[in-house]
Amino acid sequence: MREVFQQELSEVHDRLVELAKLVEVAITKATDAFNNSNIELAEEVMENDYVIDELAVSLDELAIQILARQQPVARDLRVVVGALRMSSSLERMGDIADHIAQLARYRFPEKVIAKGLRGTFKKMGERDVEIAGLLVKLLKTQNLDIVEKMRDVDDVIDELHLNVFDKVLGETWAGTPVDTVDATLASRFHERFGDHAISIAKKVRYLSTGEWAPAED
Amino acid sequence: MREVFQQELSEVHDRLVELAKLVEVAITKATDAFNNSNIELAEEVMENDYVIDELAVSLDELAIQILARQQPVARDLRVVVGALRMSSSLERMGDIADHIAQLARYRFPEKVIAKGLRGTFKKMGERDVEIAGLLVKLLKTQNLDIVEKMRDVDDVIDELHLNVFDKVLGETWAGTPVDTVDATLASRFHERFGDHAISIAKKVRYLSTGEWAPAED
Repeated sequence: MREVFQQELSEVHDRLVELAKLVEVAITKATDAFNNSNIELAEEVMENDYVIDELAVSLDELAIQILARQQPVARDLRVVVGALRMSSSLERMGDIADHIAQLARYRFPEKVIAKGLRGTFKKMGERDVEIAGLLVKLLKTQNLDIVEKMRDVDDVIDELHLNVFDKVLGETWAGTPVDTVDATLASRFHERFGDHAISIAKKVRYLSTGEWAPAED
Repeated sequence: MREVFQQELSEVHDRLVELAKLVEVAITKATDAFNNSNIELAEEVMENDYVIDELAVSLDELAIQILARQQPVARDLRVVVGALRMSSSLERMGDIADHIAQLARYRFPEKVIAKGLRGTFKKMGERDVEIAGLLVKLLKTQNLDIVEKMRDVDDVIDELHLNVFDKVLGETWAGTPVDTVDATLASRFHERFGDHAISIAKKVRYLSTGEWAPAED
């Protein structure tokens, strides 16, 4: 029974890593589609979001089966409950990649973002891709040094998010209302993507150390 | 043991209802603060968000304790896991009320929303308050007829959300970029609030009927 249990826990772990990898691919393609007005790539992200959703559901079902059959306690229980939480954050990160791809498709063949902001969004996209890659590594290795790296990247994302508003609300902004709406939504999506990654990273840290910092959430 | 278990399950239920009530109060005050530029009310919502966060954490801890001590199976297990999910959506709804209050505070003493859109946002706020009230009732009574009512209200919210974009992107829009940014963010917050309510309603229905519709999520 114990052996089956360890095997099932390791299956949960593998599916979490797999899910994070799919999210990394989605955000990589979505930001590429967004920055380069690539409609095929945007549609690919949108068509594949269901794969992330299905994997998240299958992970949840597995976690619930483990709770029912193995009735884990103490740390094992928290790992399984943590996996349920992380899968829902990962599913949401997939949705955000989908939303970014949708913005690219809506405005096609125009670029989504007005000229003066393209550099900022290129950086935000790169940081979102970076944080997704770090998340995959963190889930795979459980190396907590990665959490600090992720925090640094998220700080940069937050700064870029503020830069977007500084520009859009600044005196030199010559964008149309469409430009303003798109920049606002896109910036919010990029920023939330980072937030979800950090919320998963905190759960990983909590499961390793027992240290929780809900006030920062 | 069984009696203790039933008592604990009923405690989970009570805390969920309590959490939903706090969210209803928060969104009522937040939309009032937002529509009437009431900074005291806005600050009250922001200062009280931690109460929602703490209740959500305490509910989660209780759910995890039940999983550890009672090791529920079948439907009981799904109720407990469902409560974990619902508490995280309710916590998020509290955050959104907080975000709406923040917008009111940022722009004080100005109104957040430009004149031509105030009627639309008043309606959106009323529908958000309504859906929160229905959610309290649904959690309390488990009467599934309420789910359909909530869907109708959410459809209205989605329509109002589209109206906001129609106006902001229409030819007669004379708002400044600040007006455009605020309308975009506020509309998105109102719309997400409804989405979270519906996602909880679906979980309640699933727990009652076993019918799940993840594709619509």
